[in-house]
Amino acid sequence: MRCVRARGHRWSQQLGWYGESLGVHGLVLIALIVTLAGAASAATPPTLSEEEMAAAEFIYFDRCSGCHGALRKGATGPNIADEAMLKKSLSELETTIFEGTDAGMPGWGRTGELTAEESALMARFVQIPAPTPPEMGLAAMKATHKLYVPVEERPKEPEHKRNIDNYFGTILRDAGKGAIIDGDTKEIVNVLETGYAVHIFRASATGRYFYTIGRDGKVTLIDLYEEKPKVVAEARVCVDARSVDVSKYTGPKGDFNDKYAVVGCYWPPQMVILDGQTLEPLKVVSTRSSTYDTNEYHPEPRVATIVASHHAPEWVVAIKETGMVWLVDYSDLDNLTMTQIGTERFLHDGGFDSTGRYLMLAANMRDQIVVIDTKTRKFVGKFETGTKPHPGRGANWIDPEYGPVNATTHLGEGMIVVYGADPEGHPEYAWKVVREEETGGPGLFLKTHPKSDYIWTDATLSKEEGANQQICVFKKADFAAGAHCWKATDHGKIVHFEYNKAGDEVWTSVWDKQGELIIYDDKTLKEKARIKGDWMVTPTGKWNVYNTVHDIY
Amino acid sequence: MRCVRARGHRWSQQLGWYGESLGVHGLVLIALIVTLAGAASAATPPTLSEEEMAAAEFIYFDRCSGCHGALRKGATGPNIADEAMLKKSLSELETTIFEGTDAGMPGWGRTGELTAEESALMARFVQIPAPTPPEMGLAAMKATHKLYVPVEERPKEPEHKRNIDNYFGTILRDAGKGAIIDGDTKEIVNVLETGYAVHIFRASATGRYFYTIGRDGKVTLIDLYEEKPKVVAEARVCVDARSVDVSKYTGPKGDFNDKYAVVGCYWPPQMVILDGQTLEPLKVVSTRSSTYDTNEYHPEPRVATIVASHHAPEWVVAIKETGMVWLVDYSDLDNLTMTQIGTERFLHDGGFDSTGRYLMLAANMRDQIVVIDTKTRKFVGKFETGTKPHPGRGANWIDPEYGPVNATTHLGEGMIVVYGADPEGHPEYAWKVVREEETGGPGLFLKTHPKSDYIWTDATLSKEEGANQQICVFKKADFAAGAHCWKATDHGKIVHFEYNKAGDEVWTSVWDKQGELIIYDDKTLKEKARIKGDWMVTPTGKWNVYNTVHDIY
Repeated sequence: MRCVRARGHRWSQQLGWYGESLGVHGLVLIALIVTLAGAASAATPPTLSEEEMAAAEFIYFDRCSGCHGALRKGATGPNIADEAMLKKSLSELETTIFEGTDAGMPGWGRTGELTAEESALMARFVQIPAPTPPEMGLAAMKATHKLYVPVEERPKEPEHKRNIDNYFGTILRDAGKGAIIDGDTKEIVNVLETGYAVHIFRASATGRYFYTIGRDGKVTLIDLYEEKPKVVAEARVCVDARSVDVSKYTGPKGDFNDKYAVVGCYWPPQMVILDGQTLEPLKVVSTRSSTYDTNEYHPEPRVATIVASHHAPEWVVAIKETGMVWLVDYSDLDNLTMTQIGTERFLHDGGFDSTGRYLMLAANMRDQIVVIDTKTRKFVGKFETGTKPHPGRGANWIDPEYGPVNATTHLGEGMIVVYGADPEGHPEYAWKVVREEETGGPGLFLKTHPKSDYIWTDATLSKEEGANQQICVFKKADFAAGAHCWKATDHGKIVHFEYNKAGDEVWTSVWDKQGELIIYDDKTLKEKARIKGDWMVTPTGKWNVYNTVHDIY
Repeated sequence: MRCVRARGHRWSQQLGWYGESLGVHGLVLIALIVTLAGAASAATPPTLSEEEMAAAEFIYFDRCSGCHGALRKGATGPNIADEAMLKKSLSELETTIFEGTDAGMPGWGRTGELTAEESALMARFVQIPAPTPPEMGLAAMKATHKLYVPVEERPKEPEHKRNIDNYFGTILRDAGKGAIIDGDTKEIVNVLETGYAVHIFRASATGRYFYTIGRDGKVTLIDLYEEKPKVVAEARVCVDARSVDVSKYTGPKGDFNDKYAVVGCYWPPQMVILDGQTLEPLKVVSTRSSTYDTNEYHPEPRVATIVASHHAPEWVVAIKETGMVWLVDYSDLDNLTMTQIGTERFLHDGGFDSTGRYLMLAANMRDQIVVIDTKTRKFVGKFETGTKPHPGRGANWIDPEYGPVNATTHLGEGMIVVYGADPEGHPEYAWKVVREEETGGPGLFLKTHPKSDYIWTDATLSKEEGANQQICVFKKADFAAGAHCWKATDHGKIVHFEYNKAGDEVWTSVWDKQGELIIYDDKTLKEKARIKGDWMVTPTGKWNVYNTVHDIY
C-alpha cells in the first residue's frame, strides 16, 4: 500500500509549480515553507498493537483531549502533534504524563488516575499521528435516540409534594450517573443512568426538566414531575461533548420555552439542535471554520459553553479554537440565522452579569475575559485577568467600592480576580480589574448568591499537599482582608459550589472514588450536613434547579 | 514510517468498544459498517512519480475537479473515490476519460484537450487517494495582494469619451487574460492579465469597475475610467474559485456600493471578503458544514454562484455540495450575520426574476431549480426541469400565455424548460414548468433581453457532429413553434450569449484556440460583425457592463 503522508507536500509542489507559472511567487514560498516544515521530523514513531491503540485512544479521550484537542492541536493545553512529541524522549513524555507540569498539566499518575504502564503507553501514543475520530450525522444520532416516556404519557403536574425548585442535580462522574437530591430534606430522590462523565446538568426553562450531557455525547432528559425523577428520553449526538442548553425565549417572536435543546460537541466539531421535549435530533450545525484573528481554517473548533439569551430567541455559543461567539437564532430552524462575533481564543466557560445582559467568557489560554452584549448582539471588549481564568459561570455581587462586579478563579494560579460589570452605573470600572486576592491555589470554581455575604472558591488543581482539600471564602464587605480558608476533607479534593434556592446554604463536592457532598450554612460557614453513600461515586458539579433556571450565581 | 490509512478503522473500533461499554449498540453497528466499508477495496493502487503526480494534479484541477470535486466526492459529476476507481480497469478508465460518456462526461481526448498519454496518466491518478489541497488563510492571501493603483491616484472621472455602459468584458480562458471591448465601436480597448481560466466578469455596483475571478483563485479589479482599462489591484485568495461579486446595497443601512467584494472558493471551501476598492483580503468565512437533508458533514462544500441582494446588504451564496443558500450580511463584518437556508443539492448557477426579488438556482444533479425569496429571506420551493439544468443567470421574458417566465437549458439534454416566475400576478404558474422545447443539444447557456423578441441557446456540450457549432433561437411570441437554428461557425464551438446595452445586438463566442466573437442583429438574426485577432484565445463568457450592473438577462 502506498503511504499517503506526502499528500500535503505534493500539493504544495503542484501549487508551487502552478503558482510560479502564473508569477505568484509569494505563494510558492509559502508552499515551500509548508513542505519543509512537514519534512522536519526525524525519529521513528513507535508501533502500537490494536489493543494498545484502543486503550490509548480511550485514555486520550478521557483525560487528554479536553485540553489538547482530539487532533492534538492544543487549546487549554499546548499543541502536542506527533512531530513535536517525536523530538522528546519517551521517558521525558512519561514523566510529564505521570507527574504533570507547573504549567497546569495534571499529574495523572500522581493523582492515581493512570498507572505507570498507562503513562508509558500514552507517551508512545502521542508520538504517532493523531487518529481522526469519526463523523456523526443525523442518521447515526437518530439511531441512538430513545424516547422512554412520550410527552403525552408524562404527568400533567408533579406526582409528589417535594420542592422541585430546590432539587439538586449532581454528577457522579466516573459512574456515568447522576443523582437528584432534595435540597430541602437532603434525601436522595433517585440515581439515574446518564452519559459518561457528565459535564453539566442544565435545568429547562420551565424548571420541570434537567438536561445532562455526558463526555461521550449522550444527552438525557430527566423529568422532575415524576414521583422518582426519570430519564424520559436520551440520544447520543456527539463522540465527545461538554455543553447543553434549552430554548428559553418567550416574547413577541413566540413561546420557545423548552421547545428545543442544543448540544455542543467537542467532536465532531458541531452543535446539534434537538426537540426539547423528546430529544429527537433535528439539525446539525458544523463549527468548522476560521480563527477570528488570523482567519485560518481550524479543523476542530469545539463548542465550549452555550447559554440561552434572555433578549432574543437565540443561543450564545462559544467556539473555543476560533475565538468566535456565535449567536444562533432558533426561531426558524429551516432558515437558520446566526451572527458570528470575533472575540479571543480559546473560549471556555462563563456566565451572565446580574442583569442577564452581558455575557463574560474566559479565553483562558490568552488569560482574558471577553464580554458580549446579548442585547445589542455585539462584542463589547476583553481584558486580562490572570493565568488561565476559569470562572465556571462566574460570580456576581455588589462591591462596596466598585458596585456590581463579577469574578473568576484561575487554572494556572491561586488567584481570584474581580472586575467591574456595570457599564451603566459604574462605567469607570466596567470590564476593568478592580481587585485581586490569593485563593488556596489554582482552582476550578467560585460561587456566590445575591443573599450571601461570601464568595466561595476551590483549589482543586493545587499540587501542594492538602491545598486541594481546602475551601477559601472571601467576604464581600471586606474583600481586601483576603481569604478565610479551612480544610474540609481528608480524602479526595474539594470541587465546585452551588447554593440552595434560599441562598443560605452552600453545597460542595469531595471528588473521590467514594465521595461526599458537604453542606455549609452560608451565614456561619459551619458544616450542616454530609451526604454519602455507595452511589456517591466521584461527585463533581451540582446544580440547583431554581438558580440554574434564573442564572443566579 | 507507519501508514495512517487505518485511522478511521481504529477510531471506529474504539468507539465501538466504548459505545458497547455504555450499551450504545446502534453506534457499534454503525462503526462496524464504516470499518467494513473501509476495508473492501481489493486491487493495488498504481504508483506515480513526483513528476507524474504534479502533472496529474494540474490536469485534475484544470479539467476534473469542477464536476467531481477536489476530494472526488462528486457533485455535477459522480463520486470517483479511489476505492471505486480501483474496481475498474485502467483501460476502462482511460476510455472514459478520452471518449467521455453519455451521462455528460466530456471526451477530453476526443476534443483535443488531453493526449492519450495524459488520459492514461489520469486513469492511474484516480486510482490513488485524492491528495488534499492546501488550506489558505488570510496571511497567505495578503502575501499575494497587489495594489497597482491606490484609490487616490485613480481618475476622478473617465479619461476617455467611450461609453463604459456598453463595454464588454470577455474571458480569454486558456490565455489567463481578459479583453475589454467597446460595444459601440467593436474596438478592442485593452487585453489584461487576469487569473487563469476566468470564470466570470462581474461589473461593480457603480459600473466603474469589472471584477474577474480566475479558476486559480486570482481576483482582479479593472478600472474602466482609465484611458485604457487597467488592472488596479489583484489578489489570489483561493486555490480554485468560480465566483465573485460586490456589495450593491444602498439604503437605510448605509451606502455599500462597491465597498466590499466577495470571492467564492471551490478550494479551500470558503468565501473571502475583500475591500471592494483595493482587493485587500479582510475576512474568511468557511463553508465546511453539513448537508441540508441528511445533516452529514461534508468536507468540501464549494461556493457556486454569489449574487448581491437588492433588498438587503447581503450576498446570496449558493453552497454546492450541502444544498444550502447562505445569506451573508456584509453590513457589519465584525459581527457577521448569515442565514442558512436548506434547498437542494448540488447548487450551481442561477439568477433573479425580472423584479430582482426571486432568485432561481439550479440544483443540477437533482434536475431541479430552487427558488429563494430575497425579500422575505426564505426558501420558496423547488421543482424539476430536465437533466442537469444549467441556466447561467437564466432568462426572463413575458410569455403571451403564462406571463413573466424564466427558463433554463440543460447539461444533460438538448432542452429548454420554461417556468412561471410571477407568484403575484400569475400564481397558478409560479414555479411550475409551462413549456419545454428541444434545443440544438445539451448546452450551457441561454439569454434574452427585455427589448428582444428572442431567446438564444447554445449546444456547447453536444457530441453530435456540428451541433455544438449551431445557435438556436426561440421566438417569445410563438415559443411552441420550436427552435430556429443555424450553423454559426465551422471551427470551435459556440458558447454563451450577451446583449449590448440597447438590447438590439447579441454577442456569442466561438470557443477555440483561435476564437472569435460573432455579433448578431437581434431583430433580423443576421450577423453584423466578427471580432478576431491573435489575442482572441479561447473566448468563452462575456459581460456587458450595464446589463450586469442591472441584472438584465
